[in-house]
Amino acid sequence: MFTESDSTVELLRDKLRTAARTDKNAVEKDLVFAPKFDGNGLITAVTVDAESGEVLMVACMNEESLAQTLALGEAVYFSRSRQKLWHKGATSGHTQEVVEIRTDCDQDALVLRIRQKGPGCCHAGYGSCFYRSVPLAAEQAGDALVLQQIAEATYNPDEVY
Amino acid sequence: MFTESDSTVELLRDKLRTAARTDKNAVEKDLVFAPKFDGNGLITAVTVDAESGEVLMVACMNEESLAQTLALGEAVYFSRSRQKLWHKGATSGHTQEVVEIRTDCDQDALVLRIRQKGPGCCHAGYGSCFYRSVPLAAEQAGDALVLQQIAEATYNPDEVY
Repeated sequence: MFTESDSTVELLRDKLRTAARTDKNAVEKDLVFAPKFDGNGLITAVTVDAESGEVLMVACMNEESLAQTLALGEAVYFSRSRQKLWHKGATSGHTQEVVEIRTDCDQDALVLRIRQKGPGCCHAGYGSCFYRSVPLAAEQAGDALVLQQIAEATYNPDEVY
Repeated sequence: MFTESDSTVELLRDKLRTAARTDKNAVEKDLVFAPKFDGNGLITAVTVDAESGEVLMVACMNEESLAQTLALGEAVYFSRSRQKLWHKGATSGHTQEVVEIRTDCDQDALVLRIRQKGPGCCHAGYGSCFYRSVPLAAEQAGDALVLQQIAEATYNPDEVY
């Protein structure tokens, strides 16, 4: 459930919408937040643990979800598969408190430094969605590219979802 | 310049192409690398420093660039703006030695843990592309969303590019 006042979100959405991206130099050097949403209205968000820096997940945001995230201080994504706003943890309780948001040189990607509530970020039962490693070519043989498990499950998703 | 044997790259590309993604459960739980490329044939790659874990950049890979990365052990991306393969550092010398590649639960994103050669990863002159921070709503006033500089330049791009 979204609890911030609608006017705050609306104001933030307006600021995001009207931010000028006319000058490549300004986008890279100036201190005006002017995020670039792609043809589908989305920007990539990389979510990392605020303490350890470990990458926990990669998701997308649209203008509305970014405005809500800024207003609420909790991560709100846009789910491409469900085509709707996704307040992470709204059902599971595993919300993500946003400590800091960073943007990159051309402002077409975001890094969210967060504190994860609950046993993990990944719906498959892990602390991070990146629980498997891809061996490099030298270690590859056989027909398939075989992954290596690098993390253990931290909870049973059947008991949460 | 790409120095790995073409046959290695071709073999890897074939393995990537033929990896089955029929079963959501298998994609999440099994140890077969079956990356999901989007409608444009791209997958998101998040590049982090292998030692500190800091996020350095976010880019895209297509099947060919991922195969080359696996074969070469250096990051090869696909540049959306230039619509071609992008062997990072091929001109500047600032290559990225790949230590590990991780994939996420639904295998539609990659994390590259790398060792950056040279003074920085970002063409704008910084160690990381994420050198600016977006203040949260409570800290916002005025018309624009004002960014905060959180890193100092590590080199002068005019002397490199």
